[in-house]
Amino acid sequence: MNNSIKTLSPADFRALVRKNEFTNNTSGVAQGFVQGNVVILPQDWAYDFLLFCQKNPKPCPLIGMSSNAGDYLLTELGKNIDIRTDVPSFRIFENGQLIDEVNDIKSLWRDDLVTFVLGCSFSFEEALLADGLEIRNISEQKNVPMYTSNIACKSAGRFSGNMVVSMRPMLAKDAIRAIQICSRFPSVHGAPVHLGDASLLGINDLNNTDFGDAVTIKDNEIPVFWACGVTPQVALAQAKPPFCITHSPGAMLVTDIANSKLAVL
Amino acid sequence: MNNSIKTLSPADFRALVRKNEFTNNTSGVAQGFVQGNVVILPQDWAYDFLLFCQKNPKPCPLIGMSSNAGDYLLTELGKNIDIRTDVPSFRIFENGQLIDEVNDIKSLWRDDLVTFVLGCSFSFEEALLADGLEIRNISEQKNVPMYTSNIACKSAGRFSGNMVVSMRPMLAKDAIRAIQICSRFPSVHGAPVHLGDASLLGINDLNNTDFGDAVTIKDNEIPVFWACGVTPQVALAQAKPPFCITHSPGAMLVTDIANSKLAVL
Repeated sequence: MNNSIKTLSPADFRALVRKNEFTNNTSGVAQGFVQGNVVILPQDWAYDFLLFCQKNPKPCPLIGMSSNAGDYLLTELGKNIDIRTDVPSFRIFENGQLIDEVNDIKSLWRDDLVTFVLGCSFSFEEALLADGLEIRNISEQKNVPMYTSNIACKSAGRFSGNMVVSMRPMLAKDAIRAIQICSRFPSVHGAPVHLGDASLLGINDLNNTDFGDAVTIKDNEIPVFWACGVTPQVALAQAKPPFCITHSPGAMLVTDIANSKLAVL
Repeated sequence: MNNSIKTLSPADFRALVRKNEFTNNTSGVAQGFVQGNVVILPQDWAYDFLLFCQKNPKPCPLIGMSSNAGDYLLTELGKNIDIRTDVPSFRIFENGQLIDEVNDIKSLWRDDLVTFVLGCSFSFEEALLADGLEIRNISEQKNVPMYTSNIACKSAGRFSGNMVVSMRPMLAKDAIRAIQICSRFPSVHGAPVHLGDASLLGINDLNNTDFGDAVTIKDNEIPVFWACGVTPQVALAQAKPPFCITHSPGAMLVTDIANSKLAVL
């Protein structure tokens, strides 16, 4: 990625996205600003999903949503954000099956669609890096390793499923510091949910990821596990709503909210 | 301990101590108020010790000290506190050797003595209990297990030594919560310094404590290690000042400062 993309304002970055001049992974773009996972559902599924987020705030931290069904502008999250055009890549699902991947959803928009935007780990990774901690998936240029845990989410209507967790190996002292830093950011998954013995989460082999890539774990490190934004996608795949749109993995909505604004302390 | 001792005001409790009607361990007395480790040194050793505390704030969190050599009143820590009489039991050291254990030090007081009061784990244990966490040494009615770690303190003049750590076993999720809670209390040792693999601290057998008692560690628990107020006592034993007075282990100075006042957040 060239440096100008890193330092673009969120609005200027979204302008590129809107013209389909940027259709990729948004990791590292418009640095310093909150990026969000996107879920778009018909109104008759929206209540169940909202309740699922409410009951499971660590994996599903809601940072914004449509005020009314059919609204495609999300001005609370940024100037002129049009969810139909301002996400680099979308996935279209019917009955839980992926049927298409597209760069805008203007032609698919319906008056009954409700948009949900959920916080993502990019925000807390930025805070950890700023503190001088190493993040293995970033240093090894991989996707973060993710695993389906044995922690059951609280079910809500038609949505249920186990929590997906992301894992970052760290020295114990860095894990303690990471807990302090991430505790300030509850709306981007917050503090880790587990550390140490992976088998207590039902994970038998950390090299065998369910999503993302395995990363190196050094002898003196412990695995540290965070609630992960893939959790709602797994719940969606299980619930099989007749129609659903999400962002493509890694291709997030970039908002105008500074990451620092998410800090509760 | 009878309940009335638990609910006495700090001033009323100190009045008992002053009359030698209470000469024991202060764990649980005057609940809700800060208790302190006590170190009293001749002025020509005070600078080195103050510097040692300054350089090693996690094991040696200074919460109060004499304004001038010879002062025995510590009014910043509580109404009418007279350090010569208001600690239940004192240990007297000469050249690093324990030579006596007494209930007041009026006859030993000198115009060149400087008093240091350091925060202790009772304050953060109270905060952990209030949050519903189990503290194993309390549930098993033992002294907390302590170990001399391989973490070298920063040396200061004649004072040096390795950090002593206390250990409390916890489920990972409780360890994460404990890190959050203790981070609010930097003046009573703050966040843990390590968790998980004890051998990384040079501790080979958790059942073989250097101070205090071993406690049960369950299969699904990890040991969590905090910097410990025994650290300065080890540094004192190594430095061998010609004269030194400390509290007897567990028999702390009870101050008028509410534990909640120590919270930085």
